[in-house]
Amino acid sequence: MAAQRLVVIGGDAAGMSAASQARRFRTPDELEIVAFERGHFASYSACGIPYWIGGQVAGRDKLIARTPEEHRARGIDLRMRTEVMEIDPDRGRVRTRDLESGTEEWTGWDRLVIATGARPVRPPIPGIGAPGVHGVQNLDDGQSLLTTLDALGPAGGRRRAVVVGAGYIGVEMAEALLHHGFEVTVLNRGEQPMATLDPDMGRLVHTAMDGLGITTVNRAEVTAVRTGDDGRVRAVATAAAEYPADVVVLGIGVAPETTLARAAGLPTGEYGGLLTDLSMRVRGRDAIWAGGDCVEVLDLVSGRDRHIPLGTHANKHGQIIGANIGGGYGTFPGVVGTAVSKVCDLEIARTGLREKDATAAGLQYVTATVESTSRAGYYPDASVMTVKILAERGTGRLLGLQIVGREGAAKRVDVAAVALTAGMTVERMTMLDLGYAPPFSPVWDPVLVAARKAVRAVTAAG
Amino acid sequence: MAAQRLVVIGGDAAGMSAASQARRFRTPDELEIVAFERGHFASYSACGIPYWIGGQVAGRDKLIARTPEEHRARGIDLRMRTEVMEIDPDRGRVRTRDLESGTEEWTGWDRLVIATGARPVRPPIPGIGAPGVHGVQNLDDGQSLLTTLDALGPAGGRRRAVVVGAGYIGVEMAEALLHHGFEVTVLNRGEQPMATLDPDMGRLVHTAMDGLGITTVNRAEVTAVRTGDDGRVRAVATAAAEYPADVVVLGIGVAPETTLARAAGLPTGEYGGLLTDLSMRVRGRDAIWAGGDCVEVLDLVSGRDRHIPLGTHANKHGQIIGANIGGGYGTFPGVVGTAVSKVCDLEIARTGLREKDATAAGLQYVTATVESTSRAGYYPDASVMTVKILAERGTGRLLGLQIVGREGAAKRVDVAAVALTAGMTVERMTMLDLGYAPPFSPVWDPVLVAARKAVRAVTAAG
Repeated sequence: MAAQRLVVIGGDAAGMSAASQARRFRTPDELEIVAFERGHFASYSACGIPYWIGGQVAGRDKLIARTPEEHRARGIDLRMRTEVMEIDPDRGRVRTRDLESGTEEWTGWDRLVIATGARPVRPPIPGIGAPGVHGVQNLDDGQSLLTTLDALGPAGGRRRAVVVGAGYIGVEMAEALLHHGFEVTVLNRGEQPMATLDPDMGRLVHTAMDGLGITTVNRAEVTAVRTGDDGRVRAVATAAAEYPADVVVLGIGVAPETTLARAAGLPTGEYGGLLTDLSMRVRGRDAIWAGGDCVEVLDLVSGRDRHIPLGTHANKHGQIIGANIGGGYGTFPGVVGTAVSKVCDLEIARTGLREKDATAAGLQYVTATVESTSRAGYYPDASVMTVKILAERGTGRLLGLQIVGREGAAKRVDVAAVALTAGMTVERMTMLDLGYAPPFSPVWDPVLVAARKAVRAVTAAG
Repeated sequence: MAAQRLVVIGGDAAGMSAASQARRFRTPDELEIVAFERGHFASYSACGIPYWIGGQVAGRDKLIARTPEEHRARGIDLRMRTEVMEIDPDRGRVRTRDLESGTEEWTGWDRLVIATGARPVRPPIPGIGAPGVHGVQNLDDGQSLLTTLDALGPAGGRRRAVVVGAGYIGVEMAEALLHHGFEVTVLNRGEQPMATLDPDMGRLVHTAMDGLGITTVNRAEVTAVRTGDDGRVRAVATAAAEYPADVVVLGIGVAPETTLARAAGLPTGEYGGLLTDLSMRVRGRDAIWAGGDCVEVLDLVSGRDRHIPLGTHANKHGQIIGANIGGGYGTFPGVVGTAVSKVCDLEIARTGLREKDATAAGLQYVTATVESTSRAGYYPDASVMTVKILAERGTGRLLGLQIVGREGAAKRVDVAAVALTAGMTVERMTMLDLGYAPPFSPVWDPVLVAARKAVRAVTAAG
């Protein structure tokens, strides 16, 4: 059998997982694997950047799961600093440019994996490109931000940071900057921080961030970044006020990077992400797969496609793609929208639908919110957490769950994630056989306490 | 409507939960509630006793969820130190004895709840009744043990404790005695400590306990408790050796306390526990319910009845019983056998079937064991945990999961508990949307890593 060639566009989680998994199934004689990465790094944990910046992770290299050399040693021809400029699906080839030499060439493929990831949203506001304004999308961004922080001198003097955006990256970067001794202001466009939660739960995050010494300004639309005579950032302006800043970090989300794919006529969805079937094959294409931050995924609760850029999904996609290309099989059934995060000792978690998602999906729902503790109330370090639950009116089917608390709070969301996957009702949830011992849980786990209250709400709503 | 009377036998978790829940549905005018408790305490957390002994919980009263006075204030006529001597189901009455005065009387009921709990197993070995030998079943036991420990003088001198039994209570008491400065030896009849785990996982517990300075002796059948001239305990003897002991703690399990119920002709099962239907009504009886440590429960994985004395089940039973008696409805669907525990910083968890349970149930299975970490590998304090998974051969259905690790390990078992409840396959589990962020999990949660390996084992087994 003549060797076939697999080309992978993008050397991070989805792309390199796909390549590695395909390699487990196929020898280099059976399947040549060529991967193109335009950046300086492959297979790194972007999710870890805030902790590297914050100093909990000792250095950039710790975030690199596998070096290019390690990939090459496993029979994957990973070409760094090589950008794919064009996909030609009809002739089965890609045009690449070596970013060092500028040389362009065509490379043919029998199978193609598109794992181009996401690009940060950068609103077109004056001054956003000024020195001292930083994204935190990749390791180069992180290194650049660290250089800026170091140049601003040691802690002690008054140094001010403004974070634009109060989602996961925003709040994680607020913590990181706090660790660097900065006064931190978070400018949030929404009603409350963490728009992935309902506003009533976001309000708890706001209060807790206040307690940590992080100033959060809600309904703050940034209109300009002000610079000084030296051209460096001095402040961030909103319609209402100006916030002095020695450094600005942008944490305002990302959009699927599908420029190449769209130019090649591949189908994208409502959020601009590539559309695939459950095997992660691009819809309508036999030999092209896509995964990671550049695709949309099926939300199993609402039945709609969503864009959820998250390393854990990217790794799963890569796993499925590699198995299918290698001659095994697998499907990615979809997501329920689980996410966890923390700001210092505050833990935040969500899964399933928020109130506005349920409404948008045409579902009638009830909510229940409870306070409970991470351990038996009498056990040392039992901490209070708030759990909010959404259930479908009438059927009692679980629709979503959100948690804001301290140590031991966030990962409890996994119980709801599995229950959502199984289509469980809140009534069934109340009797779940969850692990109980005083150091780990009250006799009724907080998730069960919330489910019990939700049952009463479902019953009362009729 | 004339008031009906509910009589509850047993004033702890199941009984008082049933009473409280029934009271939520019915006023005292509609339903009189009388509860009999032969001990000095009601509604306390027996699970918390090891932590009270160990000093993490400040005092006995912290373990009392609700005092008799609080119950009475809510319209429950709780009579302490009153033992039920006989159930007369034909005439709908119980004979009670006031343990202070010795007075006996009959009390009629329209509805009866049996929540008589469990009694500790006390093997008939010489010396087991000697001063210095303690059970830890109830608060009186705990107080008595604390008195002994205090009398043995302050830490510093050499003081030796022997714990008989290496199950949950045994290992938790080993930790408690360690906190008191004792040299602790655990005598374990089985092959490895924690017989609720497979022996290969129990071996990890053994090694970790060694590391904590707790000596565990396996295959040690106690033959006698040796006493000194003063009649107090001096040593514990096995067939092979003698272990010096200033104090002995018995942690050798419990059996359902169903003496009264059996005398009344009520049905009991293989483990001596009362048999109920899913509404927790005693089988074949219209007006008698039973719950807590005195009943057998349906194991949803094996389809067999089991005896699992655990406060979290007792509370759920009480909830269901109270709702059904009060005029609401509810069912207790069964358990999957989840349990969590810890010894110092070692966390132990299990759910579903062990290898020997699967064999006994006539199931063919494969196993997979992995090591993974509680957080992203690069994140501070990421700790190693071992996860073992059992899946049905052929179908890949999850059968059980066990975890031994450190902080953040045990409660991950809940994911498997919900997956077992839903009858999920290990293949489906690999794609579960569990919470991921570096402080909380590697990009593949340890449970998913185990599921992935189990899929390969299922495939390889054909």
